[in-house]
Amino acid sequence: MIIAYIVAMQAEAQPFIDNFGVQEVPGFFSPLPCRLYHARMGSATDLYVVLNGKVHGSDLIGCESASVATQAAIQKLHPDLVINSGTCGAFSSNGADIAKVYLGNAVMFHDRRVPGDDEWGTQALGNYPVWDGTKALAEKLNLPMGKVTTGSSLDMQPCDLQMIKENNGELKDMEGAAVAFVCSLYNVPVLLVKSVTDLCDNSAETYDEFKRNLAMASEELCKVNIRIVEELKG
Amino acid sequence: MIIAYIVAMQAEAQPFIDNFGVQEVPGFFSPLPCRLYHARMGSATDLYVVLNGKVHGSDLIGCESASVATQAAIQKLHPDLVINSGTCGAFSSNGADIAKVYLGNAVMFHDRRVPGDDEWGTQALGNYPVWDGTKALAEKLNLPMGKVTTGSSLDMQPCDLQMIKENNGELKDMEGAAVAFVCSLYNVPVLLVKSVTDLCDNSAETYDEFKRNLAMASEELCKVNIRIVEELKG
Repeated sequence: MIIAYIVAMQAEAQPFIDNFGVQEVPGFFSPLPCRLYHARMGSATDLYVVLNGKVHGSDLIGCESASVATQAAIQKLHPDLVINSGTCGAFSSNGADIAKVYLGNAVMFHDRRVPGDDEWGTQALGNYPVWDGTKALAEKLNLPMGKVTTGSSLDMQPCDLQMIKENNGELKDMEGAAVAFVCSLYNVPVLLVKSVTDLCDNSAETYDEFKRNLAMASEELCKVNIRIVEELKG
Repeated sequence: MIIAYIVAMQAEAQPFIDNFGVQEVPGFFSPLPCRLYHARMGSATDLYVVLNGKVHGSDLIGCESASVATQAAIQKLHPDLVINSGTCGAFSSNGADIAKVYLGNAVMFHDRRVPGDDEWGTQALGNYPVWDGTKALAEKLNLPMGKVTTGSSLDMQPCDLQMIKENNGELKDMEGAAVAFVCSLYNVPVLLVKSVTDLCDNSAETYDEFKRNLAMASEELCKVNIRIVEELKG
């Protein structure tokens, strides 16, 4: 089985990279800045971790970078399963808490507003399929599930909140729908694993909260990913 | 010389496709829905037109689709120049008019809001390079130039307008910065050609205005593209 993790930020992936002892394969995606790590696990599992990479010293985040990394990963690694692992905002009113880790049971965009009276409106929202083993995995590992909605900004504008509320979004991220869109084009299943760095319905400033909680959220994300890989290997 | 046009909508490209007599190369990008058209022009120019393609019957529009098409086109066609041709909104206060065609002299995102106190804010805005022959071409063909700003929505929210105004944006589209971002990763020059379908500072509803003016804007776009290709061939 070939598993390809797509991760935006080095900090989100580092605990996971350290734990699994994956080794970097330098220049694999050249000239793209994406970075590849690989480990052979047992006799039948190849575990890859793909980072978007850096430009001008900062991790590439957001939807276009996620599209590029996912497309490159699918083309070159031929994964059986893509896993988009990362951090997100969530709502305490839905029971969310900092560093709580969810599996995504649905995924859409919340910031692609195109009039909804024809196919374009539907296409803009996305609502891409997630891996059909998601629910069974969540039950097996006793993980909560939530609907991921994706946008290109860290803040929460009224138009984004309205779209999220209207569509029952629970986990606000910056990559999930882009990864799932590209997976849908190649017909590759995608699993979304999201750890909460900030609560959208408290008064804290998003960026400060994100930075404060990133390390803890990434550690919890790592713990869950270890359990997921163990389960998938089996 | 290899020229690869990246166009989101069939309607935007059709006059151009008809005029140049480019022939479709079926299944070239399979399994992606992107469509390829090709014509050999004279002894030294290959002209390609890449459409994002359709999913569920509607043209794929927006930044993720543009990323995918651009990445696939660069990988498979190795263009010397990518040209993103399409429609846009503009401001009558800047002298814009329906079906006026511009070359982009700069390009950025207007809907990727990430706090700007470090590299991430800069990265989110984009500000990718455009082809360094843009200005000379505009002067030769007597075409106006403008700064393209890209977002994933057809409407204009206050946060988008604020970003556009703060950054002196003039041409609001839904693909340009995504195409330019991918080109920047592969170090391929990009030329932006944008025809105005709607005026952002009048009272008309954007989508109605867009639909009403799409055919005329695409015809004018075609005329300019013919002149551009003639010039590049020479």
